[in-house]
Amino acid sequence: MERMILACDFGGTKLSAAVVKTATSTGSVQAVLQQPSPVWHKQLQQSSSKRATAVTDIEMMIGMGRELLMGKRPFAIGISFGGPVDYKTGIVRLSHHVPGWENVPLRQRFAQEFDAPVHVDNDANVAALGEWHFGAGRGAAHLLYITVSTGVGGGWILNERPYRGADGMAGEIGHTVVDPNGPLCLCGKRGCVERLASGPYMAQDVAAQLGLPSGSVTGKMVVKMAEEGVETAVAILERGARGLGVGIGNAANLLNPSCVLLGGGVTKSGERWWQLVRQAAKATALPEVHFEILPAALGDDAPLWGAVALVHMKM
Amino acid sequence: MERMILACDFGGTKLSAAVVKTATSTGSVQAVLQQPSPVWHKQLQQSSSKRATAVTDIEMMIGMGRELLMGKRPFAIGISFGGPVDYKTGIVRLSHHVPGWENVPLRQRFAQEFDAPVHVDNDANVAALGEWHFGAGRGAAHLLYITVSTGVGGGWILNERPYRGADGMAGEIGHTVVDPNGPLCLCGKRGCVERLASGPYMAQDVAAQLGLPSGSVTGKMVVKMAEEGVETAVAILERGARGLGVGIGNAANLLNPSCVLLGGGVTKSGERWWQLVRQAAKATALPEVHFEILPAALGDDAPLWGAVALVHMKM
Repeated sequence: MERMILACDFGGTKLSAAVVKTATSTGSVQAVLQQPSPVWHKQLQQSSSKRATAVTDIEMMIGMGRELLMGKRPFAIGISFGGPVDYKTGIVRLSHHVPGWENVPLRQRFAQEFDAPVHVDNDANVAALGEWHFGAGRGAAHLLYITVSTGVGGGWILNERPYRGADGMAGEIGHTVVDPNGPLCLCGKRGCVERLASGPYMAQDVAAQLGLPSGSVTGKMVVKMAEEGVETAVAILERGARGLGVGIGNAANLLNPSCVLLGGGVTKSGERWWQLVRQAAKATALPEVHFEILPAALGDDAPLWGAVALVHMKM
Repeated sequence: MERMILACDFGGTKLSAAVVKTATSTGSVQAVLQQPSPVWHKQLQQSSSKRATAVTDIEMMIGMGRELLMGKRPFAIGISFGGPVDYKTGIVRLSHHVPGWENVPLRQRFAQEFDAPVHVDNDANVAALGEWHFGAGRGAAHLLYITVSTGVGGGWILNERPYRGADGMAGEIGHTVVDPNGPLCLCGKRGCVERLASGPYMAQDVAAQLGLPSGSVTGKMVVKMAEEGVETAVAILERGARGLGVGIGNAANLLNPSCVLLGGGVTKSGERWWQLVRQAAKATALPEVHFEILPAALGDDAPLWGAVALVHMKM
């Protein structure tokens, strides 16, 4: 018997969906799906320009799902949402990117629409689960996944289960403080990991220090400038790498995961950046605390894979 | 039927043991033992002056256990050890206080001696378990216990289970960095929580700043001097409180526990100290991350209670 899982990703800037078919007659589903290459049937993407509100996002995603499922009923649905979600109820709290998401009962809406069980979690938790189940974190009992991109967020696998914390807020490494005398973050604190290491903040600092108009530099440009030897860009990028490394070392002392995975655009900053992150992390962690810092493997697909894994964890 | 649990605490400066009787005929053991006042039969203490090596410590503890058990065989034994332990094997890695503890198979030794199952873990993990099972943390699904004393250490309860991490090292909040420009710690880093907030380090800083001989000031004296308005002591104590608070806020962002418990001598530093810890922790944590910071309830008995709880978790 073939079961279809619908995976949906309400990302910060795009919507994606996929269907995964899982054969259950030949053994445990878990075993079949942990093969390295389950079949993705299709992935649809919509550009951010066509998005407007929660209502249109939901309609578009339902349309994508219907097209992928070709009239069939899914076995279950996993949803990754780019913002805070109450995992237990499947209610979205809000989106920082798209208006109208306040208290939207996303699980209920999809369950009614597709007549199937639905599991919803935030993108960092879901990506962590995806990397653990299908990506670079396979086999690790305890792992921390961090995305270093427009923001810095994270998700935990602890004791081979997603760990969400009391309010579903666990994993916020981006707003841990690593330098109380560092630059001011929008969150009100100084020297958060996100303030030091995220793309837009690094770009802002480089622009300011070079006397360029605010907004004229991007995170990608910082990396390129650093490659070309622009000292300001090198210094800001390296400060970010070290700040992230201290944050990782602190997290390692607190939780002793065996594996820390880094994904997101900023991780494409070259070997020197990785080296500095690893150095700072190892210098911060106690010598008895062992861990590897590895690149995430699934890239932008991590939330979709994770949405599939979210269903698997409930099978 | 009455079952006897032997609880042993190999502390940094003293040995303690106790026997707890649990009635199992009337219901689940768990239920009976969560009563607020199980009967402690006796608690023996040895002064540190009589301690010499791992061998004498073990002999003394076995003698205490035999006396408490009065010839009866215990149902099980829980042991708290003041240093790193491999929980799975019950082998002590080392002690920072008493020589000869390198790779001592403590579980095996006690199992043979008393013909009973034995569970061993380090004191911070065990105290966290004790506070969660019998003390101030009852009912919290996720909690962080921190002892602020001669050192700063911690233990986690996550998803209603002790969380130990990949190497059994989880909970080392004392060596998370909260100020990379802070004073140098023996661990080699600057601005660790322990460097800022532990008794001996605060005493060292006060002595240095007042031009007193090193070792002439104790942690208790710092608190007393601060109460009497000695500015240097006030400043050092408050810096420690703030550093600890930032460390707690960082941990809360990472793990989102509902409850943070503080025990140890430094927590007797008065209301102002508690206020500063709470302020710094709340300012560091994201507004969506909710938690309480409460005094631990079991005091020096936390490891003994925890050793009982260690047995319960396996029943």
